[in-house]
Amino acid sequence: MQSAQSFPKVAAMPQFLDTQDAGFEAAFTALLGMKREDSPDVDAVVAGIIADVRARGDAAVIELTSRFDKLDLTPDRLAFSPEEIAAEVAKVTPEDRAALELAAARIRAYHERQMPEDACWQDSCGATLGWRWTPVSAAGLYVPGGLASYPSSVLMNAIPAKVAGVERLVIACPTPGGVVNPLVLLAAQLSGVDTVYRIGGAQAVAALAYGTETIRGVDKITGPGNAFVAAAKRRVFGKVGIDMIAGPSEILVIADADNDPDWIALDLLSQAEHDESAQSILVTTDAGFGRAVVAAIEGHLETLERRAIAAASWRDFGAVIVVRDLDEAAALSNRVAPEHLELCVADPDDLATKITHAGAIFLGGWTPEAIGDYVGGPNHVLPTARSARFSSGLSVMDFLKRTTIARMTPEALAAIGPAAERLAISESLQAHGLSVRARLDRLNGGQR
Amino acid sequence: MQSAQSFPKVAAMPQFLDTQDAGFEAAFTALLGMKREDSPDVDAVVAGIIADVRARGDAAVIELTSRFDKLDLTPDRLAFSPEEIAAEVAKVTPEDRAALELAAARIRAYHERQMPEDACWQDSCGATLGWRWTPVSAAGLYVPGGLASYPSSVLMNAIPAKVAGVERLVIACPTPGGVVNPLVLLAAQLSGVDTVYRIGGAQAVAALAYGTETIRGVDKITGPGNAFVAAAKRRVFGKVGIDMIAGPSEILVIADADNDPDWIALDLLSQAEHDESAQSILVTTDAGFGRAVVAAIEGHLETLERRAIAAASWRDFGAVIVVRDLDEAAALSNRVAPEHLELCVADPDDLATKITHAGAIFLGGWTPEAIGDYVGGPNHVLPTARSARFSSGLSVMDFLKRTTIARMTPEALAAIGPAAERLAISESLQAHGLSVRARLDRLNGGQR
Repeated sequence: MQSAQSFPKVAAMPQFLDTQDAGFEAAFTALLGMKREDSPDVDAVVAGIIADVRARGDAAVIELTSRFDKLDLTPDRLAFSPEEIAAEVAKVTPEDRAALELAAARIRAYHERQMPEDACWQDSCGATLGWRWTPVSAAGLYVPGGLASYPSSVLMNAIPAKVAGVERLVIACPTPGGVVNPLVLLAAQLSGVDTVYRIGGAQAVAALAYGTETIRGVDKITGPGNAFVAAAKRRVFGKVGIDMIAGPSEILVIADADNDPDWIALDLLSQAEHDESAQSILVTTDAGFGRAVVAAIEGHLETLERRAIAAASWRDFGAVIVVRDLDEAAALSNRVAPEHLELCVADPDDLATKITHAGAIFLGGWTPEAIGDYVGGPNHVLPTARSARFSSGLSVMDFLKRTTIARMTPEALAAIGPAAERLAISESLQAHGLSVRARLDRLNGGQR
Repeated sequence: MQSAQSFPKVAAMPQFLDTQDAGFEAAFTALLGMKREDSPDVDAVVAGIIADVRARGDAAVIELTSRFDKLDLTPDRLAFSPEEIAAEVAKVTPEDRAALELAAARIRAYHERQMPEDACWQDSCGATLGWRWTPVSAAGLYVPGGLASYPSSVLMNAIPAKVAGVERLVIACPTPGGVVNPLVLLAAQLSGVDTVYRIGGAQAVAALAYGTETIRGVDKITGPGNAFVAAAKRRVFGKVGIDMIAGPSEILVIADADNDPDWIALDLLSQAEHDESAQSILVTTDAGFGRAVVAAIEGHLETLERRAIAAASWRDFGAVIVVRDLDEAAALSNRVAPEHLELCVADPDDLATKITHAGAIFLGGWTPEAIGDYVGGPNHVLPTARSARFSSGLSVMDFLKRTTIARMTPEALAAIGPAAERLAISESLQAHGLSVRARLDRLNGGQR
């Protein structure tokens, strides 16, 4: 069995674990419990910003945008004008536009299949039961500014909303110093966004949740953001719906020896390059293959544009885990509940049946995770930080809600009403019971 | 047009609005914006309790239970023993048991229909796409103690979890002074709950979220609770999943003149009796009918067991709104987005098609809302405080999560990979692009 000692000392060496080592369980538990995010406690600041926006509306938003984004706005310039959007969108190259259009079409086709169906049936006692789905009326998408201003994320948030039938769809995207990414505006246009506000931070979340003189409030806010945005979303949750509190991204790759180490290295790096807090884990049945992947990563880290970020992520949070077999690999992966999971093995479909917790699965060596980020079709907004144990990626369901339906006939009420009355009495809710009893009495020819 | 002046002055008079009155819009907006909940700011206290439970585990839970519930426990007595449960359950009358069993069977049958289907298809470029649903592994249900300890809520939370396939299902229910409701334990037994902990408050939520020496942590926490429980759920959200932050209950009844005012009065009161913060609104096309309902409510308020609570709710938050027609009624109801909506009109199915936001709809005069609380089949855990604008009642979906699936063939990657590479480059994510490029190069007979 090889261990970390057999590696030369390099800058960005990940953890190297083996399930057959004595200390494995402790090391793996430590890996699971690693605190990757350095989330500053901005809650008090955010509470103040929200209160300010609620009290002073546009004036507060404009003042905070000037302070944080170095951008001076007026109420009529909070949103991009159609002319401004057209001028920015005109800068996009035909190649970039074609790529974005392909992505939009594929994401739309995938999400259209997610539309759930209404249901209605009669049960044995004659009651009609069922449910109906209706869209959220208005949604707001938060799009980060600067480096993390990803046009692909605009598509991933906006298209499911439009497929669900959301009537009014707006974006809040800060433009520090007035700089905007033309591709973000094109993505908004391609997905049917109605309005793009050039505001960000907790003030944008507050404005979307509570509305201002100029900005109409929405019912649901989705999209990633920094610590201020996350804290603001948590605070406005309840007043409006939110998607999730996203954490740093992660990937777990299960690979056997029959893979090109370079492909797997690049897949791991494509997660690591996102963020110093990102996590890339390789689980392999072959220690030699694991070492080859580590070597390939070392090589790429010499030339990669974002090598400082990727190296830090790989060094601090990366791991190579050697397992006895694929069953063990699946069991470990389920404990991690990774956001992204690649199954680079001979029979990925079989291995997939053993996976119980993962945001998205990429089957086989020809499916790099990056395909899912852009053009695969499934959503790239996925549960991070082990939350795939209890939550799902963004979908049309996030922009729909279900209304349950029930209709009793007199016969149905006669059949099940007495049980309802009995339970109401047992819970000391007399009026509940009487509301049933008054109807039963009518049926029995009783009073009234 | 009649107005409130035509009523005698009584103790529990609701607001009486008419859409044709000049001040209607302002009055209705005020009604919508009413702050019904007096939620004390317990966040700092709750933060301390959670930190204490994380640091000291069982010892903290036991100490806090002694302080808040006047109940002294030991680690081995945190959960009810099978013998204790059997002894309590034996106290339930055959009639109560039969009613609870009927409710459980109907709730189970309804929720079994909610199970979503997996999907898998091949698209035109040869990619395989789809998704799979898997259950949350472990869920914890919070059940309030004392007066609000409703066995029906145990069924409504636990049965969807079991239908979804949750393996381990536990309940936390405080038993102040050691007093427990036998029907709660029977409901737990009927719905397949594994363990019932006699703990409550923020300490119970913390124990379920983080685990202690004795209590295994869960992945999802659902169920209603007081301000401490709500604040704790908000704080642990992200570490575990939660259902919703429930507020005080509400009902809106749309009724024409062809109804028995007494039935409608009892339906409104069955909401009002829950809580002084509950809200009951009647929307009617007939002012005379509205007055008859108000009079019937007055009558019942003289004898109702919970008349103090019901009268306060009706006086402070009740409203009768006279509308021109049913279209106007639907439009107002959609602005309220009520938790419960009764449509007591000649053609309730037609009116239902105009409803865009409601937690649950009860069709026709033979369907009192109380049926939905117990035996109808649909869930009674529903979005309150206008959150039906963006959320749904509890369902099996709350205990399931979706994993998306993608599998490229070499041909599929050749077709869509270049667009992914292009978008990756536009987002300055080089490794993303390279992970696609390395595979495309292999196809093109390039390097390696």
